[in-house]
Amino acid sequence: MSVLDDQRLARAYLVRVAEPPATELVSFVGELGPVDAADRVRARDCPEKVWQETSARAGYDLAEQDLAEAERLGARLVIPEDDEWPSWPLHSLTLAQGNGIREAVPPLALWVRGQRPLDEAADNAIAIVGARAATGYGEHVASELGFGLASAGFPIFSGAAYGIDGAAHRGALASEGFTVAVLGCALDAGYPAGHEGLLNRIAESGVVISEYPMGTSPAKHRFLVRNRLIAALTEGTIVVEAGQRSGARNTAATAGALGKVVMAVPGPITSAMSVGCHDLIREAHASLVTSVQDVAGAVGKLAAGEQPRASPRRRTDRLGPEALRVHEALAPRRAKSVQHIAAESGVPVSRVRALLPALEIDGFAEHGEAGWRRLDS
Amino acid sequence: MSVLDDQRLARAYLVRVAEPPATELVSFVGELGPVDAADRVRARDCPEKVWQETSARAGYDLAEQDLAEAERLGARLVIPEDDEWPSWPLHSLTLAQGNGIREAVPPLALWVRGQRPLDEAADNAIAIVGARAATGYGEHVASELGFGLASAGFPIFSGAAYGIDGAAHRGALASEGFTVAVLGCALDAGYPAGHEGLLNRIAESGVVISEYPMGTSPAKHRFLVRNRLIAALTEGTIVVEAGQRSGARNTAATAGALGKVVMAVPGPITSAMSVGCHDLIREAHASLVTSVQDVAGAVGKLAAGEQPRASPRRRTDRLGPEALRVHEALAPRRAKSVQHIAAESGVPVSRVRALLPALEIDGFAEHGEAGWRRLDS
Repeated sequence: MSVLDDQRLARAYLVRVAEPPATELVSFVGELGPVDAADRVRARDCPEKVWQETSARAGYDLAEQDLAEAERLGARLVIPEDDEWPSWPLHSLTLAQGNGIREAVPPLALWVRGQRPLDEAADNAIAIVGARAATGYGEHVASELGFGLASAGFPIFSGAAYGIDGAAHRGALASEGFTVAVLGCALDAGYPAGHEGLLNRIAESGVVISEYPMGTSPAKHRFLVRNRLIAALTEGTIVVEAGQRSGARNTAATAGALGKVVMAVPGPITSAMSVGCHDLIREAHASLVTSVQDVAGAVGKLAAGEQPRASPRRRTDRLGPEALRVHEALAPRRAKSVQHIAAESGVPVSRVRALLPALEIDGFAEHGEAGWRRLDS
Repeated sequence: MSVLDDQRLARAYLVRVAEPPATELVSFVGELGPVDAADRVRARDCPEKVWQETSARAGYDLAEQDLAEAERLGARLVIPEDDEWPSWPLHSLTLAQGNGIREAVPPLALWVRGQRPLDEAADNAIAIVGARAATGYGEHVASELGFGLASAGFPIFSGAAYGIDGAAHRGALASEGFTVAVLGCALDAGYPAGHEGLLNRIAESGVVISEYPMGTSPAKHRFLVRNRLIAALTEGTIVVEAGQRSGARNTAATAGALGKVVMAVPGPITSAMSVGCHDLIREAHASLVTSVQDVAGAVGKLAAGEQPRASPRRRTDRLGPEALRVHEALAPRRAKSVQHIAAESGVPVSRVRALLPALEIDGFAEHGEAGWRRLDS
């Protein structure tokens, strides 16, 4: 068996015995390497803090079964020793941990279903997250952003939940873009029940990721722990809809703590599902985004030559303030004398005399027997 | 005739002969006082720059007629020499002018219809402005904000236009609060035609203001010039709905230039009428506001004891991370053993044993013959 096989077996064991984020175990593995660390945990020959994180399941030595079961599912265990490990995006967790954010612990390994390499998934990726109890508006926006961003080459991460997550994945799939689901349960948990077909489609063209070993059921705390992976593996997180309390806000907060770009889509202030987004913009200074271009701008990936939107211009925009006043004092049907125009606009007669011929040349005014009329542009 | 009467007559003349903002005339009046300045303009004995601003209408000496007509309409000319002149709010214009914003010129006088004093109108006032082609959503929000802010004691300024302006005035009227319409035409222009009744109701309990002499018709440049008064006379401006190009954005930009608080209400990103609001939040750093409390907070007028909103709390919020994991590993109907709970939660058996009785005391868990069950709060 190769060294890499040994390391994979050791990490398959470790990823089952500790509930992430396993701060102490991860640093223990960092010191000893996965093979020795696994042996020491199995033998209860490890520091007490590591044992606290592993004792409850240390006897669950299912590494070979787990790897075999993964193979049966078309999945694999990707480990930090693999070339496809997304080292750089996940480094944001290590940095944040160094800055005192205890929960920002990198994963020991990741179960991955789907053919495409993990580092490619995490290259220039954007997370689109939001409420399960989304409105039609929210699902529409999530799907449009998923479609547009995936078409523009951004892999779309989300959590495969009902509502916003599902709409974002579906939008990306519809564009034949790359989409990635990160689960808060095992790859084989069949959760959410109604999204089995969606997860199969994601695995066909993109990838489905979980740090939980086979058989792990979904749980609230696992969704929160999972959120750190969504935040870490992407350049920025867009919250499309979120109630006042929402897991999506947790992902956004984590993204912010990891130094990623936090974005939110506004909505009607009469909608409870937009309260969280508005709070993020107001209180957490999330970037308000309304389009693919806004998102690209916020994460600093505007394609060369693309400009942020400019206001459309009207022909009259190039008129000076006096010319504008003269132009407005004209009427389209009723001709007026120069004196009348001067009084109405407050512009001196001499200036009116000078401005009218210029306006006529530019097609803004017309001179007839009875005086001057307005031409509208 | 009193000195004040002379000054009022002089300003009635001056306010007719120059189209505002009349930078040179205003500073000429500042030097000479209104009576001498009016005499000098009548006699064409004034600097050329002042003559540029006044020549087109210098012969229109209608001060007495204008004052008489105003009286007939239940209106009056309020001048800087009056006690009710809102000197402090209008000082923001003078300051901005000193900072190089040429158009920030204080008015020479204001025509006012309604009984209440002008300085009271401009005390703690808020402007609510927006698109004429508003949506049902926008009108609903403008009306609710107008009602709520006027109820809380803020006079509500707007421009009496169709759409957002009208809805804001109506909301304030419905609360029996103070509302103020500032027009871009004369008080007697009958504009907008469909708002004659609304303007009458505003004048009954609040005031209608214009710097334009009787008979002046509405014009685009006058709305822009009028906007500086709305911005100057209020603490802050809320844009409720605005298209990509909109007069409301001009009011907001002016408010910002005058050092006032700029606020915008978000809306669906699928609505063209919210584009301007989103641009203001994103590009001009307008405060995103969704409620009366947000507005009060943004202008720094939260009543004593009021707190910005806090998130509602759940009972489980006070549980530590391990206790939460144990609580979630429990099932409501199926009793589980301590070992089972430890494996499922990843929390060491010894800690699970310690945490379960504490969870039971707090009503989160129940112990029976077959093991532990979850109680939901």
